Amino acid sequence: MNRKEFLQMLNEKIYFLDGAYGTEFFKKGFKGVIETLNITDKEMVFDLQKAYVDAGVDFLLTNTFSANRLKLKSLKVSYDIKDINYNAVKIAKKAVGQRNVYVLGDISSTGFLIEPLGELSFNEAYDVFKEQGEILLNAGVDGFIIETMSDLKELKAAILALRDLSQDIPIIAQMTFEENSKAVTGTSVEIFASLLNDLDIDVIGINCTLEPEKLLSVFRELAQYSKKPISVEPNAGKPKLQRDGSIVYKTSPEKFAIYMEDFVEIGANIVGGCCGTSPEHIRLMVEFLKNRKPKKRKIIAEEFVSSRTKLQKISPFLIIGEKINAAGKKKFQEKIKNKDFSKIVELASMQEQEGAHVLDVNLGIEKLLDKSHFSLAVNTLDKIGSLPLSLDIQEFEFMEEALKEYVGRPIINSSTAKKEKLDNAIYLLKRYGGMLVLLTMKDKIPETAKERFEIAKEAVEYLEKNGIKRNRILVDPLVLPVGAKKDPNVTVKTIELLSKEGLMTSIGLSNLSFGMPNREALNASFLTLCIDKGLNAAILNTSEKCTMNTIFGTLVLKGKELAKQEILKEDPL
Amino acid sequence: MNRKEFLQMLNEKIYFLDGAYGTEFFKKGFKGVIETLNITDKEMVFDLQKAYVDAGVDFLLTNTFSANRLKLKSLKVSYDIKDINYNAVKIAKKAVGQRNVYVLGDISSTGFLIEPLGELSFNEAYDVFKEQGEILLNAGVDGFIIETMSDLKELKAAILALRDLSQDIPIIAQMTFEENSKAVTGTSVEIFASLLNDLDIDVIGINCTLEPEKLLSVFRELAQYSKKPISVEPNAGKPKLQRDGSIVYKTSPEKFAIYMEDFVEIGANIVGGCCGTSPEHIRLMVEFLKNRKPKKRKIIAEEFVSSRTKLQKISPFLIIGEKINAAGKKKFQEKIKNKDFSKIVELASMQEQEGAHVLDVNLGIEKLLDKSHFSLAVNTLDKIGSLPLSLDIQEFEFMEEALKEYVGRPIINSSTAKKEKLDNAIYLLKRYGGMLVLLTMKDKIPETAKERFEIAKEAVEYLEKNGIKRNRILVDPLVLPVGAKKDPNVTVKTIELLSKEGLMTSIGLSNLSFGMPNREALNASFLTLCIDKGLNAAILNTSEKCTMNTIFGTLVLKGKELAKQEILKEDPL
Ligand SMILES: [Zn+2]
Ligand SMILES: [Zn+2]
Ligand SMILES: [Zn+2]
Repeated sequence: MNRKEFLQMLNEKIYFLDGAYGTEFFKKGFKGVIETLNITDKEMVFDLQKAYVDAGVDFLLTNTFSANRLKLKSLKVSYDIKDINYNAVKIAKKAVGQRNVYVLGDISSTGFLIEPLGELSFNEAYDVFKEQGEILLNAGVDGFIIETMSDLKELKAAILALRDLSQDIPIIAQMTFEENSKAVTGTSVEIFASLLNDLDIDVIGINCTLEPEKLLSVFRELAQYSKKPISVEPNAGKPKLQRDGSIVYKTSPEKFAIYMEDFVEIGANIVGGCCGTSPEHIRLMVEFLKNRKPKKRKIIAEEFVSSRTKLQKISPFLIIGEKINAAGKKKFQEKIKNKDFSKIVELASMQEQEGAHVLDVNLGIEKLLDKSHFSLAVNTLDKIGSLPLSLDIQEFEFMEEALKEYVGRPIINSSTAKKEKLDNAIYLLKRYGGMLVLLTMKDKIPETAKERFEIAKEAVEYLEKNGIKRNRILVDPLVLPVGAKKDPNVTVKTIELLSKEGLMTSIGLSNLSFGMPNREALNASFLTLCIDKGLNAAILNTSEKCTMNTIFGTLVLKGKELAKQEILKEDPL
Repeated sequence: MNRKEFLQMLNEKIYFLDGAYGTEFFKKGFKGVIETLNITDKEMVFDLQKAYVDAGVDFLLTNTFSANRLKLKSLKVSYDIKDINYNAVKIAKKAVGQRNVYVLGDISSTGFLIEPLGELSFNEAYDVFKEQGEILLNAGVDGFIIETMSDLKELKAAILALRDLSQDIPIIAQMTFEENSKAVTGTSVEIFASLLNDLDIDVIGINCTLEPEKLLSVFRELAQYSKKPISVEPNAGKPKLQRDGSIVYKTSPEKFAIYMEDFVEIGANIVGGCCGTSPEHIRLMVEFLKNRKPKKRKIIAEEFVSSRTKLQKISPFLIIGEKINAAGKKKFQEKIKNKDFSKIVELASMQEQEGAHVLDVNLGIEKLLDKSHFSLAVNTLDKIGSLPLSLDIQEFEFMEEALKEYVGRPIINSSTAKKEKLDNAIYLLKRYGGMLVLLTMKDKIPETAKERFEIAKEAVEYLEKNGIKRNRILVDPLVLPVGAKKDPNVTVKTIELLSKEGLMTSIGLSNLSFGMPNREALNASFLTLCIDKGLNAAILNTSEKCTMNTIFGTLVLKGKELAKQEILKEDPL
């Protein structure tokens, strides 16, 4: 089963995952770390997995939920990680036997929070997941399922690690959410989906924490925001602590099966059970839903950027604050060099108050800096719960460092239309997700709107041919200073041409008025003309009240409502 | 000689007026009121006039400079005004004899200031001039010359009175200016010209106060701003008080004649002499310049509005303050009804400080008011030296009252495109001068830009056919409230169409955002779009900083310099 076959399969019918392992082993009296059973009591694992196979699952999960090095260590398990994971695959394969069931390597959290929330570095987490994934892959799993993740950054580390092991293995990536549709780290379902739509995985899902009746509304959001097939594994009810200290889940197999129909109705492609579900829950669910075909979903057609905790749609207009920019500011540059990010934090909060949707981050002269400045800057802003970022970075290596650390869907600012630059951008967009600012130039800025337009068109075609859809691109038609006798109308005309071609556009507004008196007046007027021709975003000075006002005003004149979301009848499969 | 013949004549050669009367009679020992000589010593008058005819003048002035009822009264002359004026014409005609010389009835100030500068009413002044003019006309003058006026309002009263006596008699209208190119009442040469270009007279001129070398630069301004033939009569030098109490003028006839060539060089059509000039001055001047043809002038092609003391060019954009508007404001309306104009004065000064070029004046519900409210409002604003006014008045009778009292070139706001309204507008524009706001509607507002444009085009053609040039028209393409689901783009498109047709446009901006939140944002953005399409003026809220800013910004983007004046090679004759 390669990825293409896997995705094709998902069109045919509803697929089934298995149920709980922990709660089943506990029922049988086992109170230790369940992954040790892969060494100490293979038969107990086999029996449960055989029961799930008999219940009719399509995907059997390996008993390796906690079997990463860090988690095993904190659980004080001394068995070899290789044996635990290798055995798990072997037992699962044995339980499958000759049946048409795929084995998915099960991976979950290290139990440690990644920087900036905790001490664990992204690279360490990546290595931990890669180590476990490699064992599972070598042992013969058909795919991976990452589940019960509550930190989007840890999920991202796991995804990158597993995908680096194989370009052609299916990956299902699931997070767990509270009743308010947010993970405990503050990431919403929409933010989760907005990033995972870009990442190189196959199915986006939600599992654990909630019983079916509570999970349904959370899952409905995923169904609206995910552009990939979706999976779900609810718990079998709310956990209840018994007098003997054990935890039971009260949703009966019959009730569970009936609830699961609702998930299929709103578009689930893969369904299974999490904590408290038994082979009987799964058996009844399979019996009840096995002849169902996946439902077509209506998904939100709009584009979003996000930080860990903040989602921002592009339309009708994206306001990108320009102030975190050390270029030409000696004191600010010095602070950054010394890793004093207090000014960045101050400017972030100031611009958010002034109405920015996104913060552009430009650390100035990059020769003065190293990779750590970029990771620290990104993590500092993540820690204060900042707005989504536009990473305004020249050096490829620094851009990759920032993107790696970034939590959410950023703007990659920017690439020229030169082939080698586009190839870099394609690599970054595919690996880390995000939107791209594409400059309408190669080595020098063309004089005419037509030339700028043609360069953009050609570059967009190249990006599309390489798997980057045009809705991930913001074309920058280039604003030059009026003071340098540059005709601002060339930019306006380029926007008009690009807009008619269905391309989104973004400008760096303030360059227009460089060196001129009453800059705000020029900026505001020019922005009106650009928005009138279809401009979608601008990096600007949010302290300019007239400039901010004009965005509101021009949108109203164009009959655009700021709150409106467009839902297209688009089928994501 | 009718007006058409008179104007044709002026193309052929330089025409000559006579010189001084008073200083010549004084030389001969006469110390009284010189107009009494028309009764007491006709021969003395005849001799001087004969000398001027012999000197080669084309136009001989009647000896009636002070011969209006009010001036004669204050000079304590008890002879009948009819006899003085009648005799003057007869003496002049006798002096002309069979020569090809025209007799011009000479008219000057009453010696009293008109409201609001003095106590004399406009209507009284009008009657005084009409009375004198009628006697002169009946006695057989070939035309009128009004001279040495220092109050533009008194000049206007004289012009209206004389023109009302005959539609077909030539009128030369002259004011007198100080070295700073301003009359003692504060009116500049440009303001004088901007109004007299509209009024129904034939030649605009300057006389008295200054000797040729000082008058030249003042006259050069008239040459640039007058769209009609121009005349000039300098004094023969600076007056010097002699030991015996008499006044002498020291510029010799030779010097005077040479100086006068400079005036011809910058475009004078009619030249003569004022105080201190003698028949010998005139004789030498005629001899020296008689074969000259009038020079073609380059005149300022721009349009201006003005108050008594403030001139404002329309281009690149005219900012009309909206605040003096009692409509819907109960307290303000009550004050106006009670003739308490303190609020109007306060709003005038506030808007001027905020950057208004013109003040719109709307006294609210006109049924509550009578004519005196309008004359008082106009005079109150004149007295404080206000900006030019846009008279926003519904009732024809009230509009005419305001226009009559107004000093300068106002905006008549407004007329629909209905024929009877246009006929009223044509009457007012021809009689009182000014620019017209022409609404692109007849009985109701058309939905489309094309309909609005066609209505305007047809109305402009009608106005042009009736002698109102299109540069006196500001077409208002009508702004409707966005809040009432009206598409603002219709207005923008109408502006574009009108602008391409070479028509100037003006809007009432604030109507756009009526009832909406953040009105300034809407107004500013919309104004940018309109200016971008060529809008020339707007009535707006000058307290809106963003709206004011956007005017500056959009003009810079369009490459327009606020200080630039365009001079066209247009021949005014
Ligand atoms: Zn669970
Ligand atoms: Zn004089
Ligand atoms: Zn004179």
